[in-house]
Amino acid sequence: MNIFSLEAFKQTSIPKELSTLINPDVLAERVDQLASIGRTEDGGVTRFVYTDEEAEAKALFRSWMEQAGLEVREDAVGNMYGRLEGENPSKSAVLTGSHLDSVPNGGVFDGVLGCISSLMAIEAIVKEQGKLDRTLELVVFVDEEGARFGSGLYGSRTAMGEVDKEEMFQLRDENGMSMAEAMKIQGYAPNKIKECTYPKEDVCAFLELHIEQGKQLERNQHNIGVVNGIAGPCWLDIIFTGDTDHAGNTPMTMRHDAAAGAAELIVSIEGIPREISSTAVATVGKLQLYPNGANVIAGKAEMTVDVRDIDESVRDDVLHKVKEEAERIAKKRGLQTEYHTQLQIAPVPVPKWIQTSIKKGADKHQLSYQSLPSGASHDAMILGKYVPSGLIFVPSRDGKSHTPEELTSLADCLRGVIVLKEVLMDIGNS
Amino acid sequence: MNIFSLEAFKQTSIPKELSTLINPDVLAERVDQLASIGRTEDGGVTRFVYTDEEAEAKALFRSWMEQAGLEVREDAVGNMYGRLEGENPSKSAVLTGSHLDSVPNGGVFDGVLGCISSLMAIEAIVKEQGKLDRTLELVVFVDEEGARFGSGLYGSRTAMGEVDKEEMFQLRDENGMSMAEAMKIQGYAPNKIKECTYPKEDVCAFLELHIEQGKQLERNQHNIGVVNGIAGPCWLDIIFTGDTDHAGNTPMTMRHDAAAGAAELIVSIEGIPREISSTAVATVGKLQLYPNGANVIAGKAEMTVDVRDIDESVRDDVLHKVKEEAERIAKKRGLQTEYHTQLQIAPVPVPKWIQTSIKKGADKHQLSYQSLPSGASHDAMILGKYVPSGLIFVPSRDGKSHTPEELTSLADCLRGVIVLKEVLMDIGNS
Repeated sequence: MNIFSLEAFKQTSIPKELSTLINPDVLAERVDQLASIGRTEDGGVTRFVYTDEEAEAKALFRSWMEQAGLEVREDAVGNMYGRLEGENPSKSAVLTGSHLDSVPNGGVFDGVLGCISSLMAIEAIVKEQGKLDRTLELVVFVDEEGARFGSGLYGSRTAMGEVDKEEMFQLRDENGMSMAEAMKIQGYAPNKIKECTYPKEDVCAFLELHIEQGKQLERNQHNIGVVNGIAGPCWLDIIFTGDTDHAGNTPMTMRHDAAAGAAELIVSIEGIPREISSTAVATVGKLQLYPNGANVIAGKAEMTVDVRDIDESVRDDVLHKVKEEAERIAKKRGLQTEYHTQLQIAPVPVPKWIQTSIKKGADKHQLSYQSLPSGASHDAMILGKYVPSGLIFVPSRDGKSHTPEELTSLADCLRGVIVLKEVLMDIGNS
Repeated sequence: MNIFSLEAFKQTSIPKELSTLINPDVLAERVDQLASIGRTEDGGVTRFVYTDEEAEAKALFRSWMEQAGLEVREDAVGNMYGRLEGENPSKSAVLTGSHLDSVPNGGVFDGVLGCISSLMAIEAIVKEQGKLDRTLELVVFVDEEGARFGSGLYGSRTAMGEVDKEEMFQLRDENGMSMAEAMKIQGYAPNKIKECTYPKEDVCAFLELHIEQGKQLERNQHNIGVVNGIAGPCWLDIIFTGDTDHAGNTPMTMRHDAAAGAAELIVSIEGIPREISSTAVATVGKLQLYPNGANVIAGKAEMTVDVRDIDESVRDDVLHKVKEEAERIAKKRGLQTEYHTQLQIAPVPVPKWIQTSIKKGADKHQLSYQSLPSGASHDAMILGKYVPSGLIFVPSRDGKSHTPEELTSLADCLRGVIVLKEVLMDIGNS
């Protein structure tokens, strides 16, 4: 497996015009330092929300923000802000940032590169102009991935006032610990969640830089992706219940096998999106059989289907077809079905003036770009529902993400920071 | 949950011709007394090998054997024998019995009913004829379930000379205690394991009565199952490796999805046994996706296929077809495959003359029977490799087993004892 290493990362040749603007060594070492926290034996990271690993990553990032002269604070659920006050405090602020948590055995760039880019863009701005007209606020959102509690985009949803208190008492990790309990252990105050809402009228724009997690920029040899819309995901839990029976003593004709039903549905689901649209996707990446014993016919199978499209009606068509298939299979096999919508986020457009600002920034440095939708959800998707939000993509090698093989070249990282810096200056001085 | 209770068990109406042959109250109370040792809060039992619970159950059973006039001894690993000397000591003996240990929170009939039936059949024989031509020896094997040390069929394997001393020093329970240490604590002598081998030339036949742990007798309304062979299981681990990619940003056409491959294979596997034989079964009850995240295309899927048939060549045909399908699917999808055989036990046939003796016994009392394979493994499977062995099944309510819901009606228990008695008399006087 081809995984991140500091040496290999630094060895790529960096065009001189990039390294005079942003220090490549600092960027590389920051990526590496964060990669060492929660590192897996495969060379990836597992850094779940409200764990010691996440706390360590945040503490390190806090120290960098403080060194950069930002005024740092955390809210009651752990979103961390670093503020550079503007010349004109009456003007609304420009927010920029991403997240530091990861999926299990994930890559070292997802989220992390966004946070580091925001910080290094601000550092460059401080060096170039001191401060902007508008206040800049760097934000590190908690729990974007939702890997531990099955939540997702938790910090940004909390900042936008979307989360009610009950959710964090209901959500539990695989050891049965509630999110609220995990929060308390890390010193946060779940009861003060309402105080975490960021005043939307105080926000001029939110900008996030992220790895593409797809193959389009690489295939088309573009440096920068100007995101024109974010395909909101829907996570639908489907539970099949059948009969738990002995694998040896139950003839094939007498079975109500939840695993076989789930398998048939997964095969069906794979074929549904292409019937409806070329941009839609549907994935079953999470499945649990019960009791999950080699010699026991599964009495229960729980799966999560992730369905996405930038067009909400297309996505709804796919979901409808998935449920229809589940019912057909369950009826044929004598299984019971249950559905829970775990997450449902509407697709979010990116305002044209933000897209224009990103293109201008790229043009200024002769960087090539293309417009493209984001199939992945990001904190910018949540903020985009309430405040003007933009998303800048940088290329992902082989489109790989959520795996230790995730990689963006150091030159591409620098290009992203430079464009982000231009956009923050453009909007921050407007 | 519908669990065993003495009152409910005794309330079923017992045909008079059964209760004059075997005392239903004694049988019911013996089941109940053993059920009270290691009873769980769900009304099941947890009675692991070499625990105080198992020792208590064996002590109680020993007292019943002694009251019945049997000469009781234990071997160095704890197999317990109760001997009724025959008229003709030069003839080989007829062995009969089962086990008293259980799975965690298991049912109260599995194993126990076999031991009680053997005892009550011998009591009835003593009453009817005093002694037979051949010696009868009741055996209670230790550790059939293997629940504590992950062993399984330990007592019968030891009696057949299959176990070497090392195994009991290597196997450990979840507290890290070795099997040898646990044995010593209960007063046994692990170093004398070789003395536990039962001389095979001294055995004419072994007979075990067991609950079916399946639904066939109940569905077909038969009282007695005449087992025609014990299907040795084969556990084959199949691992598909593909590409871990982002569920949102990877078009459906660019995926190498290990979960979808596994699903396609599970659907195929379900159809394979019936193409080859009506008795063969193949089950995928255990499956793990990696990384198992809702928004990640699975890069790896590990499943265990449990394949069984009473005919080894049929089982091998099924396995061959399973691998062929796995290769076809992997090739089509660009996945890698890996196989590991975790367990492979040869099927054991039941000699025709023993099956005939069981049928004769059922006919004598106008009990209906059917021939069927045993999909589960039992001590009779181990003995059957070396000495002629037979297995008599009685119905299981809803096919349930290894759960507190396990139940066989009192009338069906009595029918089983009566048939076992006839078979022991038939073979014991031959």
